[in-house]
Amino acid sequence: MSSKDKLTPRSEDFNEWYNTVVLKADLADYGPVRGTMIVKPYGWTLWENIQHALDTRFKATGVQNAAFPMFIPMSFLQKEASHVKGFAPELAVVTIGGGQELAEPVVVRPTSETMIGHAYANWIQSYRDLPMLLNLWNSVIRWELRTKLFLRTLEFYWQEGHTAHATAVEADERTRMMLDIYADFAINEAAVPVISGVKSEMERFAGAVETLTIEAMMGDGKALQSGTSHNLGQNFAKAFDIQYLDPNNELQYCWTTSWGLSTRFIGAIIMTHGDDHGLVLPPRLAPYQTVIIPIYRKDADKTAVLEAVRRIEQELTAVNIRVKVDDRENLTPGYKFNDWELRGVPTRIEIGPRDIEKNSVALARRDIPGREGKQFVSQDGLAQVVADLLVEIQQNLLDRATRFQDENTHDVDNYDDFKTAVKTGFARVWWAGNNEDEQRVKDETKATIRCFPLEQPAGQGTCFFTGKPADRIAVFGRAY
Amino acid sequence: MSSKDKLTPRSEDFNEWYNTVVLKADLADYGPVRGTMIVKPYGWTLWENIQHALDTRFKATGVQNAAFPMFIPMSFLQKEASHVKGFAPELAVVTIGGGQELAEPVVVRPTSETMIGHAYANWIQSYRDLPMLLNLWNSVIRWELRTKLFLRTLEFYWQEGHTAHATAVEADERTRMMLDIYADFAINEAAVPVISGVKSEMERFAGAVETLTIEAMMGDGKALQSGTSHNLGQNFAKAFDIQYLDPNNELQYCWTTSWGLSTRFIGAIIMTHGDDHGLVLPPRLAPYQTVIIPIYRKDADKTAVLEAVRRIEQELTAVNIRVKVDDRENLTPGYKFNDWELRGVPTRIEIGPRDIEKNSVALARRDIPGREGKQFVSQDGLAQVVADLLVEIQQNLLDRATRFQDENTHDVDNYDDFKTAVKTGFARVWWAGNNEDEQRVKDETKATIRCFPLEQPAGQGTCFFTGKPADRIAVFGRAY
Repeated sequence: MSSKDKLTPRSEDFNEWYNTVVLKADLADYGPVRGTMIVKPYGWTLWENIQHALDTRFKATGVQNAAFPMFIPMSFLQKEASHVKGFAPELAVVTIGGGQELAEPVVVRPTSETMIGHAYANWIQSYRDLPMLLNLWNSVIRWELRTKLFLRTLEFYWQEGHTAHATAVEADERTRMMLDIYADFAINEAAVPVISGVKSEMERFAGAVETLTIEAMMGDGKALQSGTSHNLGQNFAKAFDIQYLDPNNELQYCWTTSWGLSTRFIGAIIMTHGDDHGLVLPPRLAPYQTVIIPIYRKDADKTAVLEAVRRIEQELTAVNIRVKVDDRENLTPGYKFNDWELRGVPTRIEIGPRDIEKNSVALARRDIPGREGKQFVSQDGLAQVVADLLVEIQQNLLDRATRFQDENTHDVDNYDDFKTAVKTGFARVWWAGNNEDEQRVKDETKATIRCFPLEQPAGQGTCFFTGKPADRIAVFGRAY
Repeated sequence: MSSKDKLTPRSEDFNEWYNTVVLKADLADYGPVRGTMIVKPYGWTLWENIQHALDTRFKATGVQNAAFPMFIPMSFLQKEASHVKGFAPELAVVTIGGGQELAEPVVVRPTSETMIGHAYANWIQSYRDLPMLLNLWNSVIRWELRTKLFLRTLEFYWQEGHTAHATAVEADERTRMMLDIYADFAINEAAVPVISGVKSEMERFAGAVETLTIEAMMGDGKALQSGTSHNLGQNFAKAFDIQYLDPNNELQYCWTTSWGLSTRFIGAIIMTHGDDHGLVLPPRLAPYQTVIIPIYRKDADKTAVLEAVRRIEQELTAVNIRVKVDDRENLTPGYKFNDWELRGVPTRIEIGPRDIEKNSVALARRDIPGREGKQFVSQDGLAQVVADLLVEIQQNLLDRATRFQDENTHDVDNYDDFKTAVKTGFARVWWAGNNEDEQRVKDETKATIRCFPLEQPAGQGTCFFTGKPADRIAVFGRAY
């Protein structure tokens, strides 16, 4: 950080800007073990709001929450071949418990498919036990060396859903249903436009037959995988013997899915909406939707100002607006403006002695900084004005991000244009390459297939890379 | 379990009854690593309701939630001498991360005082940063060999609150405030009567200067420590250098507290209210407050019955009653009655063809099993009748448990009566013994000082054990 009080402009150094915003907005801090993260109250409240928005959607589809142990026997990981291959390099292993060397070391969960497989095999007997639809809110461990707050940490918070079904069709439907929920959440709660699609084989989850993803474009044009939904086929059912008796009394293997969205999504919110002044939070998820700042110089004014502040606080709270009153005594209003701007609160209300006289307040919107976004409005009916403004800001953030994504996504049909496109955004291309082709593109341009979008154009085209006839479009980008 | 379908009577074998109820009511299951627990949806929903009741109370006192890493450097534990002594024998130690032997092993948190101490030392600069009031909802690891679902498991779920204050008085007030919240929650949400008091030195938290506790009497007369609040004095502040500049610009050590309530409390609910038929859940916390069971033999009746069931479900849901409709096709009504009775749902509504004719339903209350607790009521205004009944059941459970506790708590003044008292309940005695006396009583009777109640009689008495003059009453009991 160039100076302790100055924020590096986003345009100048996106990476530095991100790290500074996370710390200065008081979202998170580094934990003492390298790569770990402390999520501070402001960041955690944002996560609680995300949890609530998702949890409500999950429960509406019949999903129930449960909790599974963090300790998994090492042998479980080895039961599904590609799963262990994917996760073995990142495991944290407990070898000592209660002062004794353990006979079998246990792994701290990197994800719970194996633990779930073990339990479902015990619990599921008959087709009447299906579908089984569970979700877990917890944290998982992946031993990462190059970490970045929220985006990649040794321990991160998430939800992991795990379902078991009687048929392949049902499992496929559930995989898509949960992806739709993630997309709906991203777009309508976080104002983060996403592309829903299918991962290429190379980017697939270890053990899945198909991985669906939502991909978002960050403010620097790079892609962030923001939530994934996996169709696991019968891979885990066969590895763990998850079987059921069908109506004809015959034993069948289940079809399973898993799906997750993590605190990484907080990174998506920061990097989609943030600006040179700091964080910009979507109103529907913001811990505080408005901050009220009392302004007075003389003690004579203080009583009247604070009285108005408290009254307005109550009026706003009564219509379920999340309000913060910043009545800290030792700081100037100017300092407070900057502070809450940096922390991304969607609206700001200022009240001084002149406002009291005029029965007005100054109302500023975070998505349009400076004078342009500030208006003077009557104290009468203020709650409704703020509520409407929050809806408008939410929509504006989504529109702006969608426009940015559209402007930085280019349909290209040759490698030169491709290289230019992925420097600043996404390239949409016809693709008929194999894994080796994909790897070559990655080595040469750092861009990977983010997904094959679910929405595909009609017809066929020519692969920009191999020149072969191609029947689907891929979106490439450089990824976090 | 004597038979797969029969519940061991509570009076016959309390321990066996408990284990069977937990499994058959579908609250929890054993995890694959010895001593770990899977909390199933029914148990986890109960925990979510407990979380909500506590979280609301915490936030009303200014507490905010945050999240801290599960991995703590081993060296942190060693900074507070009595703390490491208390927890060292129970630690789980990660020695391998990402395929490499770690230079410094990390501990999976048994509790977070040390991690908090480290962070607070960084975050707190001035008196203006105080008080700092954080709470964490997470799980912790204590390597226990003799485990029992909910009561003592290798990993358990809880909240741990951690506060830092400028003065000893404030820390003391906070310690008591949080204990009061626990007692209020236990009594008014869980209908579990508790005794609030101070732990003896022997039973104090490792590193605390004072531990407050709520103690409840289980159905077998034994005590369950159900929540604790610790005044840590300046012990952790000095070990971790948590200092602040006071208004005179002088460096001072903070005063800290910590307080926790865990999934152990689910054990308290089971063992306080359960009966020979199984679980009995307090309406305010029950995942389902009422279960509706449609009854029909002929397909001709089915449509009308299910229509009424759905209508009543909606009416009850509209007034925020948590309703479960059991429309499973392959099970008899009798089986369902037993099943939901075992699972402790506070009220049951039965609707058959005759009820449709009479515009009535059968309404049964779980706290009074059998015919005595069953009445026929009109379908008109049913939602209000059920809502009122839930309030009545909640009160009845509390009254009953309070009566039981009172009847099994004896004021005694000699060792013979003491021994008799602690066989079936609590002994209230004047106490002036030292640690050795306390240990002797424990060795000879298995009873320990549960607490010195905060409510003390006036005056002085004679210690029942040492014969010395005593200025306070202690409650002894055998503990879980």
